[in-house]
Amino acid sequence: MGCLDDGRFTVELENGMKIDCSEVGLEEQGKDGSAIEDAVKVLLLGLGEDINREGIRRTPLRVAKALREGTRGYRQKVKDIVQGALFPEAGLDNRVGHAGGAGGLVIVRDIDLFSYCESCMLPFQVKCHVGYVPSGERVVGLSKLSRVADVFAKRLQEPQRLANEVCFALHHAIKPAGVAVVLQCTHIHFPDIESVFLDSNHQGLVKILVSAGSGDFENKNADVWTDFFSLVKFRGISMEKIHRRESSDLCWCPSQCAKASSKVVPINPAMVTAVASIIKSLGEDPLRKEIRGTPNRFVRWLMNFQNSNFDMKLNGFLNAGIDSLNENNEVDLNDKKTFTELNLTFWSQCEHHLLPFHGVVHIGYLISDGYKPIGKSLLQSIVHFYGFKLQVQERLTRQIAEMISPLIGGDVIVVVEASHTCMISRGIEKFGSSTATIAVLGRFSTDLTIRASFLQGIPSPTFT
Amino acid sequence: MGCLDDGRFTVELENGMKIDCSEVGLEEQGKDGSAIEDAVKVLLLGLGEDINREGIRRTPLRVAKALREGTRGYRQKVKDIVQGALFPEAGLDNRVGHAGGAGGLVIVRDIDLFSYCESCMLPFQVKCHVGYVPSGERVVGLSKLSRVADVFAKRLQEPQRLANEVCFALHHAIKPAGVAVVLQCTHIHFPDIESVFLDSNHQGLVKILVSAGSGDFENKNADVWTDFFSLVKFRGISMEKIHRRESSDLCWCPSQCAKASSKVVPINPAMVTAVASIIKSLGEDPLRKEIRGTPNRFVRWLMNFQNSNFDMKLNGFLNAGIDSLNENNEVDLNDKKTFTELNLTFWSQCEHHLLPFHGVVHIGYLISDGYKPIGKSLLQSIVHFYGFKLQVQERLTRQIAEMISPLIGGDVIVVVEASHTCMISRGIEKFGSSTATIAVLGRFSTDLTIRASFLQGIPSPTFT
Repeated sequence: MGCLDDGRFTVELENGMKIDCSEVGLEEQGKDGSAIEDAVKVLLLGLGEDINREGIRRTPLRVAKALREGTRGYRQKVKDIVQGALFPEAGLDNRVGHAGGAGGLVIVRDIDLFSYCESCMLPFQVKCHVGYVPSGERVVGLSKLSRVADVFAKRLQEPQRLANEVCFALHHAIKPAGVAVVLQCTHIHFPDIESVFLDSNHQGLVKILVSAGSGDFENKNADVWTDFFSLVKFRGISMEKIHRRESSDLCWCPSQCAKASSKVVPINPAMVTAVASIIKSLGEDPLRKEIRGTPNRFVRWLMNFQNSNFDMKLNGFLNAGIDSLNENNEVDLNDKKTFTELNLTFWSQCEHHLLPFHGVVHIGYLISDGYKPIGKSLLQSIVHFYGFKLQVQERLTRQIAEMISPLIGGDVIVVVEASHTCMISRGIEKFGSSTATIAVLGRFSTDLTIRASFLQGIPSPTFT
Repeated sequence: MGCLDDGRFTVELENGMKIDCSEVGLEEQGKDGSAIEDAVKVLLLGLGEDINREGIRRTPLRVAKALREGTRGYRQKVKDIVQGALFPEAGLDNRVGHAGGAGGLVIVRDIDLFSYCESCMLPFQVKCHVGYVPSGERVVGLSKLSRVADVFAKRLQEPQRLANEVCFALHHAIKPAGVAVVLQCTHIHFPDIESVFLDSNHQGLVKILVSAGSGDFENKNADVWTDFFSLVKFRGISMEKIHRRESSDLCWCPSQCAKASSKVVPINPAMVTAVASIIKSLGEDPLRKEIRGTPNRFVRWLMNFQNSNFDMKLNGFLNAGIDSLNENNEVDLNDKKTFTELNLTFWSQCEHHLLPFHGVVHIGYLISDGYKPIGKSLLQSIVHFYGFKLQVQERLTRQIAEMISPLIGGDVIVVVEASHTCMISRGIEKFGSSTATIAVLGRFSTDLTIRASFLQGIPSPTFT
């Protein structure tokens, strides 16, 4: 038997892989990159930012780099990945059954991926499970299942299409008896600045489970699906949840489900054009049906973080907000006990990468003579106001502390815990990582006991 | 204030960063790569393998690529990573305390890394927590903490040195008030083929926790460590476990703790020379004290997977092993109930990448007329025998099934669940992923009910 490594399947791959023919040469990277940079400058200006401000001056460069990296799948070929990783592997020798290179399910579970939502351009997380049934006495290197899935994840996507494309590509590349793909997708559901104060039970994430099957897996009721789910069930996937979405629940991306705003916000057409040009630079067709409304949706969302919006609203709110101090919270002010408000949610936008970060804020403070405790809703509002702008976590932490300090007489501690999309959706891909920052004012900076006591009262993170 | 992005700290960085001066130009990659390939061929020949066998014919190329990628830290500079990611960030404005760019702890938790053990060359996993206290009104982009840690992880390492180097490099690059690094490291502890049958309680993993601190963190008892541990404690790290290792517990790598074997196994000097040349090609000094014995240790370990070893031992064992069938296991053989043996551990070596994979095997079988049940120890031995060789998981699964089939009359199902080091220690870095393969013979291939019943009885994975 000839070696499968070099070329035996090359012709099949070349003939079979129509799906992955987009090819942007590396030499174009510079040109596309600078087109994206120019577009990002338009967006920053539209947000009312000074594009020469330190901190965001190089944001266009960083965004272009991150977007190119995050959509590198447009420039990758499945053929290049699978070629050289098909290995001859004997099946059973004169016995009834399935094993090795002829039957016998092979599964890779719990592959962490991220993708960009084609509807709103925010990254979404994917937990991917891939399986196939070998055929023709050949198997593929296990890591290739993950690598091929990543090629299609690194594009503007929608969960069901992603599953279908991974399934189709693997089927044509490996020529197995069948391929199964199951994806658990999680989309951040940012509230918008209008509604965040009204909806305290805002669900921060939208989750969906999709699947695709070819060959033996084409029939959703085939026995081999039972085997597949038996072998992934340990990881918390139950078969009952698997279904092709009906037309009634097409609303996976929150930007598509958003109710029409009561007031029509005028959208800056230059920003919309800029986003369309970014999409084109990445290798996508901005006129594709599913993408046509994306620039508009993205800009509408981005305007939540408009600079002037923020200052105007903060001033208006604080004037009204002081009255909402919680008068019912009777305390012995001589006691100097720490007032705490834990797990206040926040949503923000990283000014270095124009990508969201979100999490919770924990606040502790002492009451000085002549001051009163602050109501939870005012604290939550302060957190939202400093969240809804282009930010960095360190500054957010400091600003919240500085805002609260004069309201209670100076002794305050603020801890911010966050997940940064920019930590997973670029080359770094540190999925489980999280950040924590702390600001301490007054007694909290000098009194270790009181600080430690507050910190030890913070529960395990509830955000994901 | 001038922009910190370009150049303000360049001089400091260049003067400060003596640690990271190794630099192998890209043009040398080809030469080094082919030196590694030649060395890998020597190792494969020493294992008694046919280096032209399909499946391993391109293993030298794959190993060279994976090793170069896995040790790319030798060719990376901290300066290149941090430069352009130092941002001006105000501290507190006329208030007592610490926040923003002047004080106020910043932590990134749960960064998944892997590194190569300098003592045995096997990869080890690292859960990394990094923090620093900003100073001089500047902060560093959060992702850089992870990136800098990765530069030093991607080398031949030892946990304490890794912590020290990350700490030192960040301190010099950021110039903060202090840096804290805490690493939870996990090393695979492969049993050797001599002892695996004797020690059924073999611990498959060695774990250690190390820390390093600079500036404010230099004193292990400083208050700021209390803050640090309060902010990572949610993730299951308790401060009590943090200690610098004493000289008495230097034995982190199992290869160094191994008791002298009762019989002295002669080591092939050509293989030892080959490993030394690989280490040199990667950019390490093979004469460095800690590394001098590494080629010897690696070859000694690798010889567990010698081809001839395996066949000889299997024949000898099976002749003796048939007698060890479990005679006490009284069963009604007309009942056709499924005999199961779950969670049999296995250890193996991926023939595509010369990297370990390990996990558990689940076996189910029916007894045909005239056959008896098989004792657990024989099943475990069969699993070990097929594990201790250069393997692929699909073949391992099939071979175990084919070996058992004639012993019980033909009806057998084998499921193998594994973690593949090669899935995490190359560019893929899919830390949480695991694989599952299945072989079904006889009635298990045709009777869905009996197969599903067995699969549903498999518990959640106990291996990590």
